[in-house]
Amino acid sequence: MVFDPPFGTDTDETRPAIVRATYEALIEHGYENLTIQRIGDEFPKSKSLIYQHYDGKDEVLVDLLEFLLDHFETQMPHPSTRDAHDCLENVLDFVLEPDPDADRAELTNVMVELRGQAPHNETFEEYFTANDRQFRRDLADIVDRGIEEGVYRPVDAEAVAEFLLTTMNGQTMRRATADEGVDAAAIRAELDAYLRSRLLREDRANGEKE
Amino acid sequence: MVFDPPFGTDTDETRPAIVRATYEALIEHGYENLTIQRIGDEFPKSKSLIYQHYDGKDEVLVDLLEFLLDHFETQMPHPSTRDAHDCLENVLDFVLEPDPDADRAELTNVMVELRGQAPHNETFEEYFTANDRQFRRDLADIVDRGIEEGVYRPVDAEAVAEFLLTTMNGQTMRRATADEGVDAAAIRAELDAYLRSRLLREDRANGEKE
Repeated sequence: MVFDPPFGTDTDETRPAIVRATYEALIEHGYENLTIQRIGDEFPKSKSLIYQHYDGKDEVLVDLLEFLLDHFETQMPHPSTRDAHDCLENVLDFVLEPDPDADRAELTNVMVELRGQAPHNETFEEYFTANDRQFRRDLADIVDRGIEEGVYRPVDAEAVAEFLLTTMNGQTMRRATADEGVDAAAIRAELDAYLRSRLLREDRANGEKE
Repeated sequence: MVFDPPFGTDTDETRPAIVRATYEALIEHGYENLTIQRIGDEFPKSKSLIYQHYDGKDEVLVDLLEFLLDHFETQMPHPSTRDAHDCLENVLDFVLEPDPDADRAELTNVMVELRGQAPHNETFEEYFTANDRQFRRDLADIVDRGIEEGVYRPVDAEAVAEFLLTTMNGQTMRRATADEGVDAAAIRAELDAYLRSRLLREDRANGEKE
Protein backbone atom coordinates (compact mmCIF):
# COMPACT_ATOMS: atom_id res chain seq x y z
CA MET A 1 0.00 0.00 0.00
CA VAL A 2 1.42 3.39 -0.95
CA PHE A 3 1.92 5.65 2.03
CA ASP A 4 3.22 9.21 1.71
CA PRO A 5 5.09 10.26 4.83
CA PRO A 6 3.89 13.45 6.49
CA PHE A 7 6.00 16.50 5.67
CA GLY A 8 7.07 14.94 2.39
CA THR A 9 7.75 18.30 0.83
CA ASP A 10 9.73 21.13 2.38
CA THR A 11 7.91 24.23 3.41
CA ASP A 12 9.13 27.81 3.73
CA GLU A 13 6.19 28.86 5.87
CA THR A 14 7.19 29.33 9.47
CA ARG A 15 4.36 27.61 11.38
CA PRO A 16 4.37 24.42 9.26
CA ALA A 17 8.17 24.33 9.58
CA ILE A 18 7.86 24.53 13.39
CA VAL A 19 5.26 21.74 13.37
CA ARG A 20 7.57 19.64 11.22
CA ALA A 21 10.49 20.28 13.57
CA THR A 22 8.29 19.17 16.47
CA TYR A 23 7.51 15.93 14.66
CA GLU A 24 11.21 15.28 14.04
CA ALA A 25 12.04 16.05 17.68
CA LEU A 26 9.32 13.63 18.85
CA ILE A 27 10.72 10.86 16.65
CA GLU A 28 14.20 11.54 17.99
CA HIS A 29 13.50 12.08 21.69
CA GLY A 30 9.96 10.89 22.48
CA TYR A 31 7.16 12.80 24.15
CA GLU A 32 8.61 12.67 27.64
CA ASN A 33 11.85 14.37 26.59
CA LEU A 34 10.40 16.91 24.18
CA THR A 35 11.48 20.48 24.85
CA ILE A 36 11.31 23.72 22.90
CA GLN A 37 15.12 23.53 22.82
CA ARG A 38 14.95 20.19 21.00
CA ILE A 39 12.27 21.46 18.62
CA GLY A 40 14.63 24.36 17.93
CA ASP A 41 17.44 21.91 17.12
CA GLU A 42 15.30 20.48 14.28
CA PHE A 43 14.18 23.92 13.09
CA PRO A 44 16.34 25.49 10.38
CA LYS A 45 15.51 29.11 11.26
CA SER A 46 15.95 31.17 14.44
CA LYS A 47 14.56 29.56 17.60
CA SER A 48 13.04 32.89 18.62
CA LEU A 49 10.52 32.44 15.80
CA ILE A 50 9.06 29.49 17.71
CA TYR A 51 8.16 31.74 20.62
CA GLN A 52 6.76 34.38 18.27
CA HIS A 53 4.38 31.83 16.73
CA TYR A 54 3.52 29.58 19.68
CA ASP A 55 2.91 30.06 23.40
CA GLY A 56 4.71 26.82 24.21
CA LYS A 57 5.14 23.21 23.20
CA ASP A 58 1.56 22.23 24.12
CA GLU A 59 0.24 24.63 21.49
CA VAL A 60 2.60 23.30 18.78
CA LEU A 61 1.64 19.73 19.70
CA VAL A 62 -2.04 20.46 19.07
CA ASP A 63 -1.18 21.79 15.60
CA LEU A 64 0.98 18.72 14.99
CA LEU A 65 -1.76 16.33 16.11
CA GLU A 66 -4.28 18.06 13.85
CA PHE A 67 -1.84 17.90 10.94
CA LEU A 68 -1.09 14.20 11.46
CA LEU A 69 -4.75 13.21 11.77
CA ASP A 70 -5.52 15.15 8.58
CA HIS A 71 -2.57 13.59 6.81
CA PHE A 72 -3.66 10.08 7.74
CA GLU A 73 -7.17 10.88 6.54
CA THR A 74 -5.89 12.08 3.14
CA GLN A 75 -3.84 8.86 2.81
CA MET A 76 -6.84 6.64 3.52
CA PRO A 77 -8.22 4.92 0.40
CA HIS A 78 -11.52 6.55 -0.54
CA PRO A 79 -14.71 4.85 -1.71
CA SER A 80 -14.34 3.84 -5.32
CA THR A 81 -16.83 2.68 -7.91
CA ARG A 82 -16.09 -0.90 -6.92
CA ASP A 83 -18.36 -2.67 -4.46
CA ALA A 84 -18.43 -1.92 -0.74
CA HIS A 85 -16.43 -4.99 0.20
CA ASP A 86 -13.54 -3.95 -2.05
CA CYS A 87 -13.61 -0.53 -0.36
CA LEU A 88 -13.54 -2.08 3.09
CA GLU A 89 -10.68 -4.39 2.15
CA ASN A 90 -8.74 -1.36 0.86
CA VAL A 91 -9.22 0.46 4.15
CA LEU A 92 -8.11 -2.61 6.12
CA ASP A 93 -5.10 -3.11 3.81
CA PHE A 94 -4.11 0.47 4.45
CA VAL A 95 -4.61 0.68 8.22
CA LEU A 96 -3.42 -2.86 9.02
CA GLU A 97 -0.44 -2.58 6.65
CA PRO A 98 1.42 -5.84 7.28
CA ASP A 99 4.85 -4.46 6.48
CA PRO A 100 5.10 -0.74 7.33
CA ASP A 101 8.20 1.13 6.18
CA ALA A 102 10.28 3.28 8.54
CA ASP A 103 8.29 6.48 7.87
CA ARG A 104 5.05 4.73 8.65
CA ALA A 105 6.46 3.08 11.78
CA GLU A 106 7.69 6.47 13.04
CA LEU A 107 4.28 8.01 12.46
CA THR A 108 2.62 5.14 14.36
CA ASN A 109 4.99 5.64 17.29
CA VAL A 110 4.32 9.38 17.42
CA MET A 111 0.54 8.90 17.22
CA VAL A 112 0.56 6.31 20.02
CA GLU A 113 2.74 8.53 22.21
CA LEU A 114 0.36 11.45 21.66
CA ARG A 115 -2.66 9.23 22.29
CA GLY A 116 -1.05 7.98 25.49
CA GLN A 117 -1.27 11.55 26.83
CA ALA A 118 -5.02 11.74 26.31
CA PRO A 119 -6.06 10.46 29.77
CA HIS A 120 -4.66 13.68 31.24
CA ASN A 121 -4.92 15.96 28.21
CA GLU A 122 -8.47 16.97 27.40
CA THR A 123 -7.57 18.63 24.10
CA PHE A 124 -5.87 15.49 22.84
CA GLU A 125 -8.77 13.37 24.09
CA GLU A 126 -11.21 15.54 22.13
CA TYR A 127 -9.18 15.16 18.93
CA PHE A 128 -8.88 11.40 19.25
CA THR A 129 -12.53 11.02 20.18
CA ALA A 130 -13.62 13.09 17.17
CA ASN A 131 -11.23 11.22 14.91
CA ASP A 132 -12.49 7.81 16.09
CA ARG A 133 -16.07 8.99 15.61
CA GLN A 134 -15.41 10.14 12.04
CA PHE A 135 -13.56 6.95 11.14
CA ARG A 136 -16.34 4.81 12.63
CA ARG A 137 -18.90 6.77 10.60
CA ASP A 138 -16.88 6.18 7.41
CA LEU A 139 -16.67 2.47 8.16
CA ALA A 140 -20.39 2.26 8.94
CA ASP A 141 -21.14 4.05 5.65
CA ILE A 142 -19.18 1.41 3.75
CA VAL A 143 -21.04 -1.39 5.56
CA ASP A 144 -24.41 0.28 4.92
CA ARG A 145 -23.50 0.62 1.26
CA GLY A 146 -22.64 -3.09 1.18
CA ILE A 147 -26.05 -3.92 2.63
CA GLU A 148 -27.75 -1.76 -0.05
CA GLU A 149 -25.66 -3.40 -2.77
CA GLY A 150 -26.69 -6.83 -1.48
CA VAL A 151 -23.06 -7.76 -0.85
CA TYR A 152 -23.51 -7.75 2.94
CA ARG A 153 -26.16 -9.24 5.18
CA PRO A 154 -28.44 -6.78 7.03
CA VAL A 155 -26.09 -6.36 10.00
CA ASP A 156 -25.84 -3.54 12.56
CA ALA A 157 -23.40 -1.36 10.60
CA GLU A 158 -22.55 0.81 13.61
CA ALA A 159 -21.62 -2.20 15.74
CA VAL A 160 -19.49 -3.72 12.97
CA ALA A 161 -17.73 -0.37 12.48
CA GLU A 162 -17.08 -0.08 16.23
CA PHE A 163 -15.55 -3.54 16.28
CA LEU A 164 -13.34 -2.96 13.23
CA LEU A 165 -12.16 0.39 14.59
CA THR A 166 -11.29 -1.17 17.95
CA THR A 167 -9.28 -3.98 16.38
CA MET A 168 -7.42 -1.51 14.15
CA ASN A 169 -6.64 0.69 17.15
CA GLY A 170 -5.42 -2.34 19.05
CA GLN A 171 -3.01 -3.33 16.30
CA THR A 172 -1.73 0.24 16.01
CA MET A 173 -1.10 0.44 19.74
CA ARG A 174 0.54 -2.98 19.95
CA ARG A 175 2.72 -2.26 16.94
CA ALA A 176 4.14 0.85 18.61
CA THR A 177 4.56 -0.69 22.05
CA ALA A 178 5.20 -4.43 21.60
CA ASP A 179 6.28 -4.53 18.00
CA GLU A 180 8.10 -7.82 17.71
CA GLY A 181 5.11 -9.59 19.26
CA VAL A 182 2.51 -8.47 16.69
CA ASP A 183 1.39 -11.02 14.10
CA ALA A 184 -0.34 -8.79 11.56
CA ALA A 185 -1.09 -11.70 9.22
CA ALA A 186 -2.95 -13.59 11.97
CA ILE A 187 -4.98 -10.52 12.96
CA ARG A 188 -5.94 -9.94 9.34
CA ALA A 189 -6.82 -13.60 8.72
CA GLU A 190 -9.17 -13.65 11.73
CA LEU A 191 -10.69 -10.32 10.77
CA ASP A 192 -11.34 -11.63 7.26
CA ALA A 193 -12.93 -14.77 8.76
CA TYR A 194 -15.21 -12.51 10.80
CA LEU A 195 -16.15 -10.49 7.71
CA ARG A 196 -16.88 -13.64 5.70
CA SER A 197 -19.12 -15.17 8.32
CA ARG A 198 -20.74 -12.02 9.69
CA LEU A 199 -21.07 -9.68 6.72
CA LEU A 200 -20.64 -11.34 3.37
CA ARG A 201 -23.54 -13.12 1.72
CA GLU A 202 -22.86 -16.73 0.81
CA ASP A 203 -22.19 -16.25 -2.91
CA ARG A 204 -19.66 -13.50 -2.31
CA ALA A 205 -18.02 -15.28 0.66
CA ASN A 206 -17.43 -18.41 -1.41
CA GLY A 207 -15.57 -16.34 -3.98
CA GLU A 208 -13.22 -14.97 -1.32
CA LYS A 209 -9.80 -16.44 -0.76
CA GLU A 210 -9.64 -18.60 2.35
CA MET B 1 -17.23 -8.71 37.43
CA VAL B 2 -15.48 -8.26 40.75
CA PHE B 3 -12.35 -6.20 40.45
CA ASP B 4 -10.07 -5.48 43.43
CA PRO B 5 -8.28 -2.17 43.03
CA PRO B 6 -4.50 -2.28 43.27
CA PHE B 7 -3.15 -1.19 46.67
CA GLY B 8 -6.41 -2.19 48.32
CA THR B 9 -4.68 -2.71 51.65
CA ASP B 10 -2.30 -0.30 53.34
CA THR B 11 1.31 -1.27 53.63
CA ASP B 12 3.94 -0.25 56.15
CA GLU B 13 6.80 -1.39 53.98
CA THR B 14 8.66 1.51 52.47
CA ARG B 15 9.16 0.44 48.85
CA PRO B 16 5.53 -0.69 48.30
CA ALA B 17 4.38 2.56 49.93
CA ILE B 18 6.52 4.57 47.47
CA VAL B 19 5.13 2.56 44.54
CA ARG B 20 1.63 3.22 45.79
CA ALA B 21 2.33 6.95 46.14
CA THR B 22 3.61 6.94 42.54
CA TYR B 23 0.37 5.37 41.38
CA GLU B 24 -1.68 8.00 43.23
CA ALA B 25 0.47 10.79 41.79
CA LEU B 26 0.01 9.39 38.26
CA ILE B 27 -3.76 9.32 38.69
CA GLU B 28 -3.70 12.90 39.97
CA HIS B 29 -1.19 14.51 37.61
CA GLY B 30 -0.59 12.18 34.66
CA TYR B 31 2.69 10.84 33.36
CA GLU B 32 3.84 14.08 31.78
CA ASN B 33 3.61 15.99 35.04
CA LEU B 34 4.93 13.31 37.38
CA THR B 35 7.79 14.45 39.60
CA ILE B 36 9.48 13.02 42.70
CA GLN B 37 8.03 16.04 44.51
CA ARG B 38 4.50 14.95 43.58
CA ILE B 39 5.21 11.33 44.52
CA GLY B 40 6.41 12.71 47.85
CA ASP B 41 3.13 14.59 48.30
CA GLU B 42 1.27 11.24 48.19
CA PHE B 43 3.81 9.50 50.43
CA PRO B 44 3.02 9.55 54.16
CA LYS B 45 6.63 9.30 55.32
CA SER B 46 9.71 11.46 54.77
CA LYS B 47 10.47 12.28 51.13
CA SER B 48 14.13 11.53 51.71
CA LEU B 49 13.22 7.84 51.97
CA ILE B 50 12.26 7.92 48.29
CA TYR B 51 15.82 8.84 47.33
CA GLN B 52 17.23 6.22 49.69
CA HIS B 53 15.20 3.50 47.97
CA TYR B 54 15.13 4.64 44.36
CA ASP B 55 17.55 6.32 41.98
CA GLY B 56 14.77 8.36 40.42
CA LYS B 57 11.23 8.25 39.12
CA ASP B 58 12.10 5.97 36.19
CA GLU B 59 13.13 3.25 38.63
CA VAL B 60 9.94 3.58 40.71
CA LEU B 61 7.86 3.50 37.53
CA VAL B 62 9.33 0.14 36.54
CA ASP B 63 8.39 -1.28 39.96
CA LEU B 64 4.92 0.21 39.59
CA LEU B 65 4.46 -1.24 36.10
CA GLU B 66 5.56 -4.67 37.32
CA PHE B 67 3.17 -4.44 40.27
CA LEU B 68 0.21 -3.38 38.11
CA LEU B 69 0.78 -6.09 35.50
CA ASP B 70 1.00 -8.69 38.29
CA HIS B 71 -2.11 -7.31 39.95
CA PHE B 72 -4.10 -7.49 36.74
CA GLU B 73 -2.90 -11.05 36.22
CA THR B 74 -4.06 -12.08 39.71
CA GLN B 75 -7.47 -10.51 39.04
CA MET B 76 -7.91 -12.40 35.79
CA PRO B 77 -10.39 -15.30 36.05
CA HIS B 78 -8.44 -18.56 35.96
CA PRO B 79 -9.35 -21.74 34.11
CA SER B 80 -12.06 -23.56 35.98
CA THR B 81 -13.51 -27.02 35.72
CA ARG B 82 -16.14 -25.73 33.34
CA ASP B 83 -15.57 -26.04 29.61
CA ALA B 84 -13.10 -23.92 27.68
CA HIS B 85 -15.75 -21.63 26.23
CA ASP B 86 -16.97 -20.67 29.71
CA CYS B 87 -13.38 -19.86 30.63
CA LEU B 88 -12.92 -17.71 27.56
CA GLU B 89 -16.19 -15.87 28.22
CA ASN B 90 -15.03 -15.19 31.79
CA VAL B 91 -11.78 -13.69 30.55
CA LEU B 92 -13.62 -11.52 28.02
CA ASP B 93 -16.16 -10.45 30.68
CA PHE B 94 -13.29 -9.41 32.90
CA VAL B 95 -11.09 -7.59 30.38
CA LEU B 96 -13.92 -6.03 28.35
CA GLU B 97 -15.87 -5.06 31.51
CA PRO B 98 -18.78 -3.06 30.10
CA ASP B 99 -19.19 -0.82 33.12
CA PRO B 100 -15.88 -0.27 34.93
CA ASP B 101 -15.96 1.47 38.29
CA ALA B 102 -13.74 4.46 39.11
CA ASP B 103 -10.84 2.32 40.45
CA ARG B 104 -10.79 0.25 37.30
CA ALA B 105 -11.02 3.32 35.04
CA GLU B 106 -8.10 4.92 36.86
CA LEU B 107 -6.02 1.77 36.45
CA THR B 108 -6.84 1.68 32.73
CA ASN B 109 -5.76 5.30 32.36
CA VAL B 110 -2.47 4.69 34.16
CA MET B 111 -1.71 1.56 32.12
CA VAL B 112 -2.42 3.35 28.83
CA GLU B 113 -0.25 6.31 29.83
CA LEU B 114 2.60 3.96 30.75
CA ARG B 115 2.12 2.00 27.53
CA GLY B 116 2.17 5.25 25.55
CA GLN B 117 5.78 5.72 26.72
CA ALA B 118 6.90 2.39 25.31
CA PRO B 119 7.92 3.66 21.84
CA HIS B 120 10.80 5.53 23.51
CA ASN B 121 11.21 3.45 26.65
CA GLU B 122 12.79 0.08 26.01
CA THR B 123 12.19 -1.23 29.53
CA PHE B 124 8.46 -0.51 29.30
CA GLU B 125 8.34 -2.00 25.82
CA GLU B 126 9.92 -5.20 27.13
CA TYR B 127 7.36 -5.46 29.93
CA PHE B 128 4.39 -4.89 27.64
CA THR B 129 5.76 -7.26 25.01
CA ALA B 130 6.29 -9.99 27.61
CA ASN B 131 2.87 -9.35 29.13
CA ASP B 132 1.14 -9.53 25.73
CA ARG B 133 3.02 -12.73 24.97
CA GLN B 134 1.96 -14.37 28.23
CA PHE B 135 -1.67 -13.29 27.81
CA ARG B 136 -1.72 -14.56 24.23
CA ARG B 137 -0.32 -17.89 25.40
CA ASP B 138 -3.04 -18.15 28.08
CA LEU B 139 -5.72 -17.38 25.49
CA ALA B 140 -4.27 -19.90 23.04
CA ASP B 141 -4.23 -22.53 25.81
CA ILE B 142 -7.94 -21.99 26.41
CA VAL B 143 -8.67 -22.29 22.68
CA ASP B 144 -6.54 -25.45 22.41
CA ARG B 145 -8.40 -26.90 25.38
CA GLY B 146 -11.70 -26.11 23.65
CA ILE B 147 -10.52 -27.96 20.55
CA GLU B 148 -9.57 -30.99 22.67
CA GLU B 149 -12.93 -30.87 24.45
CA GLY B 150 -14.69 -30.80 21.10
CA VAL B 151 -16.32 -27.46 21.94
CA TYR B 152 -14.28 -25.59 19.33
CA ARG B 153 -13.50 -26.33 15.73
CA PRO B 154 -9.86 -27.17 14.89
CA VAL B 155 -8.81 -23.52 14.42
CA ASP B 156 -5.36 -21.91 14.59
CA ALA B 157 -5.38 -21.19 18.35
CA GLU B 158 -2.41 -18.80 18.15
CA ALA B 159 -4.09 -16.69 15.47
CA VAL B 160 -7.39 -16.56 17.38
CA ALA B 161 -5.51 -15.57 20.55
CA GLU B 162 -3.63 -12.83 18.69
CA PHE B 163 -6.89 -11.44 17.35
CA LEU B 164 -8.67 -11.49 20.72
CA LEU B 165 -5.69 -9.87 22.43
CA THR B 166 -5.55 -7.11 19.81
CA THR B 167 -9.25 -6.32 20.14
CA MET B 168 -8.99 -6.25 23.95
CA ASN B 169 -5.98 -3.93 23.73
CA GLY B 170 -7.88 -1.71 21.33
CA GLN B 171 -10.83 -1.36 23.68
CA THR B 172 -8.52 -0.64 26.61
CA MET B 173 -6.71 2.08 24.68
CA ARG B 174 -9.89 3.64 23.34
CA ARG B 175 -11.53 3.57 26.76
CA ALA B 176 -8.67 5.59 28.25
CA THR B 177 -8.34 8.04 25.37
CA ALA B 178 -11.76 8.44 23.74
CA ASP B 179 -14.00 7.17 26.47
CA GLU B 180 -17.39 8.61 25.59
CA GLY B 181 -17.03 7.18 22.10
CA VAL B 182 -16.57 3.53 23.10
CA ASP B 183 -19.53 1.19 22.68
CA ALA B 184 -18.43 -1.81 24.77
CA ALA B 185 -21.70 -3.69 24.15
CA ALA B 186 -21.24 -3.48 20.37
CA ILE B 187 -17.63 -4.64 20.55
CA ARG B 188 -18.62 -7.60 22.71
CA ALA B 189 -21.58 -8.52 20.50
CA GLU B 190 -19.38 -8.61 17.39
CA LEU B 191 -16.67 -10.54 19.22
CA ASP B 192 -19.27 -13.11 20.34
CA ALA B 193 -20.51 -13.36 16.74
CA TYR B 194 -16.93 -14.06 15.66
CA LEU B 195 -16.53 -16.72 18.34
CA ARG B 196 -19.82 -18.40 17.39
CA SER B 197 -19.00 -18.58 13.70
CA ARG B 198 -15.26 -19.18 13.89
CA LEU B 199 -14.75 -21.30 17.00
CA LEU B 200 -17.89 -22.89 18.36
CA ARG B 201 -19.17 -26.12 16.91
CA GLU B 202 -22.75 -25.96 15.64
CA ASP B 203 -24.45 -27.66 18.61
CA ARG B 204 -22.79 -25.38 21.14
CA ALA B 205 -23.24 -22.24 19.00
CA ASN B 206 -26.99 -22.82 18.76
CA GLY B 207 -27.21 -22.97 22.53
CA GLU B 208 -25.56 -19.53 22.88
CA LYS B 209 -27.57 -16.40 23.39
CA GLU B 210 -27.78 -14.32 20.23
